[in-house]
Amino acid sequence: MNIPYRLADIAAQFGGRVLGDAEVRISQIATLENAQPNHISFFTNSKYRTQLASTCAGAVILGEADADATDLSRIVSDNPYAYFAKVSALLNPFPEAKPGVHPSAVVGAGAKIDATASIAAMVVIGEGATIGAHSVIGEGCCIGANTAIGSCARLYPRVVIYHGCVIGDNLIAHSGAVIGSDGFGIAIDEGRWIKIPQIGRVVIGNDVEIGANTTIDRGALDDTVIENGVKLDNQIQIAHNVHIGAHTAIAGCAGIAGSAVIGRYCLIGGGARILGHLQLTDHVEIAAHTLVGKSIREAGSYAAIFPFSKTGDWRKNAVHLRHLDDLAKRIKALEQEIKTLNSESLKRQSLKRQN
Amino acid sequence: MNIPYRLADIAAQFGGRVLGDAEVRISQIATLENAQPNHISFFTNSKYRTQLASTCAGAVILGEADADATDLSRIVSDNPYAYFAKVSALLNPFPEAKPGVHPSAVVGAGAKIDATASIAAMVVIGEGATIGAHSVIGEGCCIGANTAIGSCARLYPRVVIYHGCVIGDNLIAHSGAVIGSDGFGIAIDEGRWIKIPQIGRVVIGNDVEIGANTTIDRGALDDTVIENGVKLDNQIQIAHNVHIGAHTAIAGCAGIAGSAVIGRYCLIGGGARILGHLQLTDHVEIAAHTLVGKSIREAGSYAAIFPFSKTGDWRKNAVHLRHLDDLAKRIKALEQEIKTLNSESLKRQSLKRQN
Amino acid sequence: MNIPYRLADIAAQFGGRVLGDAEVRISQIATLENAQPNHISFFTNSKYRTQLASTCAGAVILGEADADATDLSRIVSDNPYAYFAKVSALLNPFPEAKPGVHPSAVVGAGAKIDATASIAAMVVIGEGATIGAHSVIGEGCCIGANTAIGSCARLYPRVVIYHGCVIGDNLIAHSGAVIGSDGFGIAIDEGRWIKIPQIGRVVIGNDVEIGANTTIDRGALDDTVIENGVKLDNQIQIAHNVHIGAHTAIAGCAGIAGSAVIGRYCLIGGGARILGHLQLTDHVEIAAHTLVGKSIREAGSYAAIFPFSKTGDWRKNAVHLRHLDDLAKRIKALEQEIKTLNSESLKRQSLKRQN
Repeated sequence: MNIPYRLADIAAQFGGRVLGDAEVRISQIATLENAQPNHISFFTNSKYRTQLASTCAGAVILGEADADATDLSRIVSDNPYAYFAKVSALLNPFPEAKPGVHPSAVVGAGAKIDATASIAAMVVIGEGATIGAHSVIGEGCCIGANTAIGSCARLYPRVVIYHGCVIGDNLIAHSGAVIGSDGFGIAIDEGRWIKIPQIGRVVIGNDVEIGANTTIDRGALDDTVIENGVKLDNQIQIAHNVHIGAHTAIAGCAGIAGSAVIGRYCLIGGGARILGHLQLTDHVEIAAHTLVGKSIREAGSYAAIFPFSKTGDWRKNAVHLRHLDDLAKRIKALEQEIKTLNSESLKRQSLKRQN
Repeated sequence: MNIPYRLADIAAQFGGRVLGDAEVRISQIATLENAQPNHISFFTNSKYRTQLASTCAGAVILGEADADATDLSRIVSDNPYAYFAKVSALLNPFPEAKPGVHPSAVVGAGAKIDATASIAAMVVIGEGATIGAHSVIGEGCCIGANTAIGSCARLYPRVVIYHGCVIGDNLIAHSGAVIGSDGFGIAIDEGRWIKIPQIGRVVIGNDVEIGANTTIDRGALDDTVIENGVKLDNQIQIAHNVHIGAHTAIAGCAGIAGSAVIGRYCLIGGGARILGHLQLTDHVEIAAHTLVGKSIREAGSYAAIFPFSKTGDWRKNAVHLRHLDDLAKRIKALEQEIKTLNSESLKRQSLKRQN
Repeated sequence: MNIPYRLADIAAQFGGRVLGDAEVRISQIATLENAQPNHISFFTNSKYRTQLASTCAGAVILGEADADATDLSRIVSDNPYAYFAKVSALLNPFPEAKPGVHPSAVVGAGAKIDATASIAAMVVIGEGATIGAHSVIGEGCCIGANTAIGSCARLYPRVVIYHGCVIGDNLIAHSGAVIGSDGFGIAIDEGRWIKIPQIGRVVIGNDVEIGANTTIDRGALDDTVIENGVKLDNQIQIAHNVHIGAHTAIAGCAGIAGSAVIGRYCLIGGGARILGHLQLTDHVEIAAHTLVGKSIREAGSYAAIFPFSKTGDWRKNAVHLRHLDDLAKRIKALEQEIKTLNSESLKRQSLKRQN
C-alpha cells in the first residue's frame, strides 16, 4: 500500500488552504463515488454534487467557489484539477526500477549507459547510443545507433527508437511507440516509385509523453521536431518534418501530415487530420475527427464534423450534398424572380396611385 | 494436411440436415470459386448463385431456403454462416503449442504459470503475474507484474499487457496490441501539463478478441472494462475508463474516447469515433467513419458520412457548407416574400371579385 | 561521412546535363535553405526561388525549364525530383549489416536462412521459414513458421510476420508493422460471436514498403494480395482479402476494409477509408479523410471532406445538415409557387394587352 500523508503534509508541499481536520491520513486518490476513508477525492465539476454529498472519502480537493460545498476535511485550491494531479503523483510515484543492465539485454559498442539507468530484459541498445541518468528502458525496447536519450526517461516495453535521434529529459513513451521511422518519401520515375532516403532525425524536447503505438517519422532532409512539454496520446501519426510547438496536446488517432507546423499550446482532437505543409498558429483548438485543409493564422477553436443522425435520416439529407451547388443556384434564381415579381407589383401599385 | 471428416460426422457434431452423400470426406473449407472435391464450401448470398452452379466443392453448407439450389452433397442449416464458422474451426484448430517456458523467456519472481501453458521465446513475464491453463503466450510478449490471464488465452507475438490487469478466459490478442497503457490524463498548471497518474486497471471478460496494434488504456482511477464476448478489430483505440458491453463488435481504426460507455451487442464501423463520456445503449449500430458527438438512447443504426464525389464536384458543392445557415435564412426570407406576394395577389383577386 | 562524388560522376550514373563546374564534389543532399558547399540541393517548386538565390549548396538539381534559374553548378533533368531521390540513395545507402545470425536469435527447425542474410538480436524465425539473400531482419522481429521472405528485404526492429506468408524481394517494413494477423471474421450464433478461422495468407510482391505500425490481415479463405511496387505509409489497416494493385501508394492512417480491390497506380490520401467489397479502378486518387462508399469505375480524383471553420460558424451551419432534405423540399415548393405567381402575372399582362 502507499505511504499515508496527512492533509497538512500535502498542503505544506503543494499549497492550498486546509479546512476541517488537517490530521486526516490519506494513502490514495479516488473518485467521489468509490473513495474510502483513507482516500482523498476531488470536486471540479458541479455535475457531481450528489456524489460529493454521499462520498466516503476522507478528504476532498476543491476550488475556492466550492470551499463550503461540503463539511468533509478538504483542501481548497485555485486549480483543484491540477492539485489532484499533483497529489496523485505524490501518492503514486513511478515504481522504482533497479539500476543496471539485464543480462539478456544486448548493448552495442560505444553505447554510454548511465550507472543509474535501468535497462530491462530483451532490450537492444545500438552502437554509440546514450542513455541518461535514472532513465528506465522497458522490456524489449530497441534504441538505435547513436540515439541519445536524456535523464529520467521511462520507456514502457517494446518502444522502438531508430538511429540518430535526440531525446530530452523526462520522456515517457508507451509500448509500441515508434520514433524515427522513415517518412513517406517517394518519387515516381518511369512508372515506378523510388524511395527518397530519409536522412533527417527526430528531435524531441523535455517533458514529452508519447502514447502507445504512436509513430513519429524522421525528417526527409531536415529534422522532425517535437518541442518541450508536448503530450501525444495513442496511435497518433506524425509525419516527416512536422514541427510541434511546446505544450501542444494531441488526442488519440490524430494524424499530422508532412512538414506541417503546429504552434504552441494547441489542442488537437482525436482522429483529427492536419494536411501537409500547413501552419497552425499558437492556441489553436481543432475538434475531433476534423480535417484541416488550410493554414490557421488566428487562435481559436475550429471544427468540421458531419452531425450524425439515424441512418435513414442521414441518407435522406446527405443525398443533397451532391447537389448543394444546384440548390444554391436555385435559391439565387428564386431571389431574382421574386425581385422581378416585386418590382412588377410595385409598378402596379404606383400605376394605381397615379390613376 | 487436415484430418478429413465425413459430412455425417460434421452433422453429428453441429446438427443440420445432410442431403446427398453423407460419406463425402472433407478436409478443408473454401470459397465456391476455389473449392476442390475434398473441400466444403458455403452459400449464404444469392449473388454467388453462378459460383454455386460451377463449384468443384465436395459439399456445400446452405440455408433452408436454398436446400434445393444445388445437387451437390450438402448440409442444410438455419444459420449457414455460423455453421461454416464452426466447420472451419473444426478443420482448422489452433496449432498446438508445446507446454513449458522457452529457455530465453524471463519470468519474474512469484509469477504463476500453469504447467499446461506455453511461454514462447523472448517473452517477459512480470513478478506475480498469473498465466492460466492451456494459455499460449507468443514470442516476445510482455506481461506486466501482477497481471492475471485466464485459461486458453492465445497471445500472438509482441503483445504487451501492462501491470495489474485482469483478463478472463479465451483471450485472443494479436501482435502489437497494447493493453493497460496509461490513459491520456493531463492537467494544465501554470502553462505546463502535469501528468495524472493512471492507477486504474484494464479488466477484460471471457471470449474477447483484440486485433493487431489495438490499444486499450488503463483507467485513470477506476478501471477500463471490456465485457465478455467483445470483438475488436485492428488499430482500435480504447481510452481510459471506457466500458464496452458484452458481445459488441468494433471494426478497424475506430476510436472510443475516455469514459464512454458502449452498450451490449453494438456494432461500431471502421474508423468511427465515439466522443468521451457519452453513453450508447444496447444494439446501436454506427456507420464507418462516423463521429458520434452525443449519447444515443435508442437502439438502431446511425450515420454521418459526407458522400464522396469527383473532386471538382465536391469542391463546387462543399463551398456552400460554410454558408448553409445563410442559405437557410435566404429560403426563409423567400418564403416570407412569397407569402406577401400571395396575400397581395389574393387581395387583388378578392377586389376584382368585389368589383 | 559519406563518400564524395563529382557532379560528373553523378551525371555519368543517372544521366542529365551538367552545367557549371562538373568537378564539384558532393557528399550529401540537403534543402536549399540548409545546404553547405559540399551538398547538392534541388529546385522543383518555383515557390522556393528566393531560397535558390541564396543557397550555399555546391550544386543543384533542377528541371529543363529552370536550367538558367541559377549560376550554380547544376544538373538539369527531365524529372528533377526523381533525380534527387536517386542521388540521395547513392549518397545514403542502407548501412551494411553483418551477415549471420545473432547468438540471441532463435531459429526454428528447418528454417532456411541465406548465408548473406543478417538476423539481428532477439529475432525469432519460425520453423520452415525462408530468408533470402542479403535480407536484413532487424532486432526483435518475429517471422512465422513457413513464411518466405525474398532477397534484399530490410525489416526494421519488431516487425511481426505471421506464419505461411509469401513476400517478394526488396521488402522494406518498418517497426511495429504486423503482416498476416487474422482478419476480422466473426459470425453470430445464438447471441455469441464465433470466430471464423482465417486460413488465407498475405502474399506481397516485390519492391513493397510498409510503414511503421501498419497492419495487413491474412485472408479468410483466399489470400490478401499486395502487388509489386505498392507503398504503404504508417498506421494503415489493410483488412482480409484486400487486393492492392501494383504501384499504388497509400498515405498514413488509411483503412481498406475487407475484400476491397484497389487498382494500379492509385493514390489514397491519409486517413481515407475504403469500405469492404468495393472496387476502385486504376489511377484513382482519393483525398485525405474521405470515405469511399461505393465502387469507382472511372479514373480520376475523388473527395468527401467537410470544410472546417471556426467552431461557432461550423455549429451554425452544420445544424442545417440534419434538415437538408427539408430545405430542398422548401426550395421546390418555392419554385412551384413562383411558377404559379408568374403564370398569374403573365395572365394579367395578357389580359391587359387584350383590353
